[in-house]
Amino acid sequence: MKAGPYAEVMDKVPTIKDVADLARVHAATASRALNPQTRDMVSNRTANRVIEAAKALGYAPNSAARSLRTRTSSVAGVVIPDLRNPVFPPIVRGIEDGLREAGYMALLGNTDGDPVREREILATMRGRQTDGFILATSRREESPAEMEGLRAVPTVLVNRRTDTGDIPSVTADNSAGVAAVVRLLAGLGHQRIAHLAGPKDLSTGWERYRAFTDGMASHGLEPDPRRVVFCSAFTEEAGLLAARELFAADPGITAVIAGNDLIALGCYTALSELGLSCPRDVSVVGFNYMPFLDKQRPALSTVRIPHYDIGIEAARMLLERIANPSAPAKRVVLPVQLVERESVAVPRE
Amino acid sequence: MKAGPYAEVMDKVPTIKDVADLARVHAATASRALNPQTRDMVSNRTANRVIEAAKALGYAPNSAARSLRTRTSSVAGVVIPDLRNPVFPPIVRGIEDGLREAGYMALLGNTDGDPVREREILATMRGRQTDGFILATSRREESPAEMEGLRAVPTVLVNRRTDTGDIPSVTADNSAGVAAVVRLLAGLGHQRIAHLAGPKDLSTGWERYRAFTDGMASHGLEPDPRRVVFCSAFTEEAGLLAARELFAADPGITAVIAGNDLIALGCYTALSELGLSCPRDVSVVGFNYMPFLDKQRPALSTVRIPHYDIGIEAARMLLERIANPSAPAKRVVLPVQLVERESVAVPRE
Repeated sequence: MKAGPYAEVMDKVPTIKDVADLARVHAATASRALNPQTRDMVSNRTANRVIEAAKALGYAPNSAARSLRTRTSSVAGVVIPDLRNPVFPPIVRGIEDGLREAGYMALLGNTDGDPVREREILATMRGRQTDGFILATSRREESPAEMEGLRAVPTVLVNRRTDTGDIPSVTADNSAGVAAVVRLLAGLGHQRIAHLAGPKDLSTGWERYRAFTDGMASHGLEPDPRRVVFCSAFTEEAGLLAARELFAADPGITAVIAGNDLIALGCYTALSELGLSCPRDVSVVGFNYMPFLDKQRPALSTVRIPHYDIGIEAARMLLERIANPSAPAKRVVLPVQLVERESVAVPRE
Repeated sequence: MKAGPYAEVMDKVPTIKDVADLARVHAATASRALNPQTRDMVSNRTANRVIEAAKALGYAPNSAARSLRTRTSSVAGVVIPDLRNPVFPPIVRGIEDGLREAGYMALLGNTDGDPVREREILATMRGRQTDGFILATSRREESPAEMEGLRAVPTVLVNRRTDTGDIPSVTADNSAGVAAVVRLLAGLGHQRIAHLAGPKDLSTGWERYRAFTDGMASHGLEPDPRRVVFCSAFTEEAGLLAARELFAADPGITAVIAGNDLIALGCYTALSELGLSCPRDVSVVGFNYMPFLDKQRPALSTVRIPHYDIGIEAARMLLERIANPSAPAKRVVLPVQLVERESVAVPRE
C-alpha cells in the first residue's frame, strides 16, 4: 500500500535539532540555513546540506515560534466579497498557487461587501500576524484612514483598484475589453447600443462604463443617457431590474453591453419577459467569461479575463511587497480577449 | 466620510494591558477572561467586563504568542481537490462562516487530487499549528498510516467519507437522491436506464452507484452491466468519454443517471454527437445542483445538495472535535431534493 498523505503528518514531528544532527551542524546553524533571511550567514555548501536534511526528514518549521522571532508568519490574508461569485474561485486558486511557490498559505475571508465585516476580518487576520493582504473588496474612493491602513501593511488589490492608484493592483484590461465589444457591435451596424453598467463606486463598473462612452464616441455614435443604467450590484437580480428600466425607457435598443456576465443573464430574463429574442431582436454581450455559459441558449458572447493569472500575479506582487515594502506601487493590467458566441447578430430590419 | 475597514487596523494595535486598564483588572486576569479555556478561573461578572472592554477597543489577541502558550491557533486547515469545481465554493463559504462564529479562520489548500501535494499541504499546515482539518479529498480506503493520521488530529471529512466510518463526516444523502431519480424515471415508464457512475474509489461515486443498483432492483428492473460505465473522474471530459462507450454498447438506452452534473454535461455532448435529442430520445439527470445549469438547454434535472449547510455543519463538527477530541465520530448525512427540469420525459415510442 502506498504511503498516504497523512503518514508523515502523523509521525513524531522532526525538530530543528533532528535536522541539525542529520546535517552534522549546530542547531543555530541549521536554523540560519533554513531561513531565507539569514541564509547568507552560512556557507552555500552548509546551507545545501541542511536543506537536503530538512527535506529528507520532512521538516516543517514551527511557524508560530518563528513568527515571534522574525515577525513573519508566511500567511497572507485573502479578502473577497463572496466565493460563490464565479469570478473568485479561479482568482483565489491562482493566489494560492502563487503563494505556495514561496511557502506561503492563504487565510480566506468573505465580506459580502459589508465594510463592518471587512474591518473585523482584517483585524482578526492582523491579530494572527498575517504578513500581507490581497483584497478584492476595495472601492474606488477609500477614506484617508483606509488609505493609511492599506499603505501600512503590504497590500495588493486584485480585480479592483482605487482611483489614486497608489496601492499596487492587478486588474484585467477592462477598457480594451469594452472597446472590442463596441467595435464588434458598431461593425455589425448597431447604433442604438445600451450599457447595463456595474456599480459606479467599483473600478470594474466605472472603467467599463468609461470605455463604453469612449468607444461609442470613437465610432461616431451618440451615447444616449437613456441607454445607460447603472446596476446596484454585479448580480443577476440587479441586471434584471436594470434591464427592465432600460427597455421601458427606450424599446428601440438593438444591442446591450452588460457590465458582467451575471448582469447579462438578468438581461436575458428581461428580454424573454418582453417577448424579445436574443440575438434576433437584441444582441447581448457580457464580461468575465464565467464557466459553463457556453452551454446557455443563446451562448453568451463575452470578454475573457485571465482570472487564474490575475491571482498568480497578485500573489507574486504581494511577495515582492513583503520583501520590499517601500518599492513603488505597480499597477499590472492583464490583457483580455473577446469571445464571440451566439448572442450577437446584425440589428433587426 | 464613514470609518472604513482599515481605520482600526491602522491605529496602534491595542494590547492586553489596554484591555485590562479599561476593565480595571490585572493583565493576567484579563488574559484569563479572554481565553475560553481559562475563563472559569475568573467570575462571570469580571469576564463580561473584560470581554466588553476588548470589544470596545477592537482588541485582537496576538495569536502567534497565544498559540505557543496554549497550543491552539484558531486556524483550521481546509483541503479540497480544486476550488474551480463548482461544488466547492459554497461548501468552503459555509465552512468559513461556521468557523468564524467561534473566532476561527480557514487556511485553504488545493490538492488537484494529488496525494503528494496533499501530504505537503497537510505538513505545512501542521507546521503552522493548525488546530484541525476539514478534508474534502479522502478516498474510501485510506492506508492504515493515513487513518492513524486522521485520528491523531481533529479532522472532519466533508462531502466524501471513508468506508470504515470512524472519522467524522458530513455528506449529502446520496442514496436517497439516486433512489428518487430512479423512482421518477421508472414512474415515467423507463426500463433501459443507464448509469454514468463516478469513480469507484470515492464515496460519492460508490454510494450513488450502489443506490442505482438498489433502486433498479426495487422497481423490478434488471441493471444490465452494459448500462453502467464508471467515469475516471467527476468531470465533463470523463463524462463524454464514458457516454460514448455507453451508447456504443447499448444504443437502446432511454435514460441516463449521471454521477454528477459535470458528467451529465459530457453526456449532453455525446448525445448531440449521435444526433440524439434530450429529452425526446434520452432523458438525462445529474447530481449536485450546480449553479446556472437551469439556463442550459435543456435545463438539467438534478439532485440538490445543501452545499453551504454541509460546510456550516462540518465547521461546527470540527469545533466540537477540537473541544473534545475523544468524542465518538459522528456521521452527519444531510437531506437532498430532486429538482425536475426539462431534461426528463417519457421514453420514446
